[in-house]
Amino acid sequence: MRLSTYFLPTLKEDPAEAQVVSHRLMLRAGMIRQHAAGIYNWLPLGLRVLRRVEWIVREEQNAAGAQEILMPTVQSADLWRESGRYEDYGKEMLRLTDRHGRAMLYSPTHEESVTNIFRQNIKSYRDLPRMFYQIHWKFRDEVRPRFGVMRGREFLMKDNYSFDLDYAGARRAYNRMFVAYLRTFSRMGLRAVPMRADAGPMGGDMSHEFIILAATGESSVFFHRALLEKNPPLNIDYTSNLQQIVNEWMSLYAATDEKHDPQATVVTALGNDLIAARGIEVGHIFYFGRKYSDPMRAMVVGPDGDLVPVEMGSYGIGISRLVAAIIEASHDEAGIIWPAAVAPFRVGLINLKGGDTAIDAGCDALYEMLCRARVEVLYDDRHERVGTKFADMDLIGLPWQVIVGPKSLARGVIELKNRATGAREELSPEALMERLRAKD
Amino acid sequence: MRLSTYFLPTLKEDPAEAQVVSHRLMLRAGMIRQHAAGIYNWLPLGLRVLRRVEWIVREEQNAAGAQEILMPTVQSADLWRESGRYEDYGKEMLRLTDRHGRAMLYSPTHEESVTNIFRQNIKSYRDLPRMFYQIHWKFRDEVRPRFGVMRGREFLMKDNYSFDLDYAGARRAYNRMFVAYLRTFSRMGLRAVPMRADAGPMGGDMSHEFIILAATGESSVFFHRALLEKNPPLNIDYTSNLQQIVNEWMSLYAATDEKHDPQATVVTALGNDLIAARGIEVGHIFYFGRKYSDPMRAMVVGPDGDLVPVEMGSYGIGISRLVAAIIEASHDEAGIIWPAAVAPFRVGLINLKGGDTAIDAGCDALYEMLCRARVEVLYDDRHERVGTKFADMDLIGLPWQVIVGPKSLARGVIELKNRATGAREELSPEALMERLRAKD
Repeated sequence: MRLSTYFLPTLKEDPAEAQVVSHRLMLRAGMIRQHAAGIYNWLPLGLRVLRRVEWIVREEQNAAGAQEILMPTVQSADLWRESGRYEDYGKEMLRLTDRHGRAMLYSPTHEESVTNIFRQNIKSYRDLPRMFYQIHWKFRDEVRPRFGVMRGREFLMKDNYSFDLDYAGARRAYNRMFVAYLRTFSRMGLRAVPMRADAGPMGGDMSHEFIILAATGESSVFFHRALLEKNPPLNIDYTSNLQQIVNEWMSLYAATDEKHDPQATVVTALGNDLIAARGIEVGHIFYFGRKYSDPMRAMVVGPDGDLVPVEMGSYGIGISRLVAAIIEASHDEAGIIWPAAVAPFRVGLINLKGGDTAIDAGCDALYEMLCRARVEVLYDDRHERVGTKFADMDLIGLPWQVIVGPKSLARGVIELKNRATGAREELSPEALMERLRAKD
Repeated sequence: MRLSTYFLPTLKEDPAEAQVVSHRLMLRAGMIRQHAAGIYNWLPLGLRVLRRVEWIVREEQNAAGAQEILMPTVQSADLWRESGRYEDYGKEMLRLTDRHGRAMLYSPTHEESVTNIFRQNIKSYRDLPRMFYQIHWKFRDEVRPRFGVMRGREFLMKDNYSFDLDYAGARRAYNRMFVAYLRTFSRMGLRAVPMRADAGPMGGDMSHEFIILAATGESSVFFHRALLEKNPPLNIDYTSNLQQIVNEWMSLYAATDEKHDPQATVVTALGNDLIAARGIEVGHIFYFGRKYSDPMRAMVVGPDGDLVPVEMGSYGIGISRLVAAIIEASHDEAGIIWPAAVAPFRVGLINLKGGDTAIDAGCDALYEMLCRARVEVLYDDRHERVGTKFADMDLIGLPWQVIVGPKSLARGVIELKNRATGAREELSPEALMERLRAKD
């Protein structure tokens, strides 16, 4: 992509309305623009990141055996009356009325509608287990939307719902998502810590928030040092018993400050192994049993011929929020530092002397080579000052910068800068291509 | 994908509520389920087709130089008051009020919001031309939603908006979309006929509907026989002058019955070259000049330093509607016949004797081979009657059926059936793989 024709409205100054670094950088890097309070337009650069995050989430959901569907954003109030949540939900639910006077709503979550799909189409225990997920926009009418897409009103979410015949099946589903979440965040270059969360009326240990560590995160978190070294399993057979993997993670202390008790024996026993850090919640997995299947009568015929309400769980990831969270976890004074897996482009190509025939030709050739090798490249071919080009490229945070100027070109080499480390080196065009084709 | 675990709730009987063939087949093939009037859930098979259609549209939009963005579904009424459409739009607009009492709406179209993005970020004629598009859900509160996703209330649409300095630029943008649309529909295996449509207050010839031909289509259309043989250009340089290509198409008579006058000289002169057929509108391209840029003051500094309101056009494709339209254009008594480019899977693998060790092993091996070769395959490994398996596979309409039974397996061959032609042949496993890997 040539920057001269790419819609990338970067800002030199920090926008006054942005209180957190991700909001500031997303505005400055031309990723988003506000439409109304808590409601955003995604511009080309931001949308590319959003799609990459979405894609990683989707691959890991599919690998874990979940099947993708898509439920509507506008829903009938009827199902919500069946579950009892229509009245309970409160003002965060955006209620509306259609032209025929029917009560509708912009769905903030989809337990009711997925339970309705289930009960209409699945009748036998033989068709279990099932996991349905979608990646779709939701609306929650927050009183005070803030921090950009971190706490917006219209937001993109992955929500998955599991259906099982019994508690043991629900536990297997829960474990699959537990492991899938570890893998998902790890692939994005994030360190995610699962933390026991409120289990609600069901009790038990099947409710976890996934918090990613970020120095500027909104929450204080406390956890066992060993969690910093634990990596999710690389190859995983989701049909196998995952309980042991899950136990390894669950057995290590981790709590948000709401739950953290510094006087507790389990905490004091940790000594120097207790880490205090900051983080951002990006996912939540939750077992809720028959909370919806009972009132909505989502039942299957069990092995002995009886009708059994199914056991359910739900598993969310905030996709649009993750884009901001990744920035909170990975930035410096100059701007964003994208982990390779979610970077909008892999390479930024900077022409240091636009208008100079030789340099233009050298850059154009390099650009074509990168495109042909399917290395995604944003080519700054604008007639701007060199300082502006460097600043913009650091701001938007592509993993690699390829810098082409008269001096290096005369020597037949090209300068490559690693955005994360700042390390620079000079390479032949062949070595450069080799490097940029590598996995990261 | 193994059908034993895939969520594909096919129906044997025609659902009473479905009046048109696409609605009937989408329900029967387990592609969609209704949530409320004109509002649908997309189940896994339907969603796969939707995403393929979406992807082809996206590729052709990108190739034509448009840049993808994403605008929110819930919008503030303010911008619509600026354009004057908030009051004008009528009851098709779903209006709502947020918790702070602000007037909002579920956007039925995005001229206002894209014009707002433009005016806030683009200031100079040097940054023109621009084309921004999105693929997103919209809501129009139809009085009588019907025909399934063909005329739903919540629907997926590609909407593109062009911004140019002058009429000549707007014409170039229009031509780019004209050609991109021809290519888009052709890639989906459809024959699309562009037809002059109402130009609105601007007058002129820059408004076309794209109608795809389908025997069960909703509209009567009349056009020059030569349009049946015209194919869109294969290789296209979108930076070149496309006027001649566009003229070739525009010069051939084509009209919907609202515009068709059988007595007109231009029509009677056609004689036997006049074709009467039926079709479905799937796209609309439209030049509207300064309709929004004037009231909303979307201006750029022109070459001579004056502020100039930009010239705009909009270009829509009904993505969810296209899924139904493709079925209207391509089906038979037994079910859907997917064109290869939009098929949810390329191959259906049918095990004729599930439970037989040798047949199961043969099918499993073939399934693994296809997966490894990245041929997308739906493997009917259910314990169902052979008649059910054949009927379901014909119903869901995958381009190729691979049929494995005891007799052919004993002879070392595999039966391959072409869903569109019904032709069957026997092939060695190697020849089969070769065939299925080919482009279609």
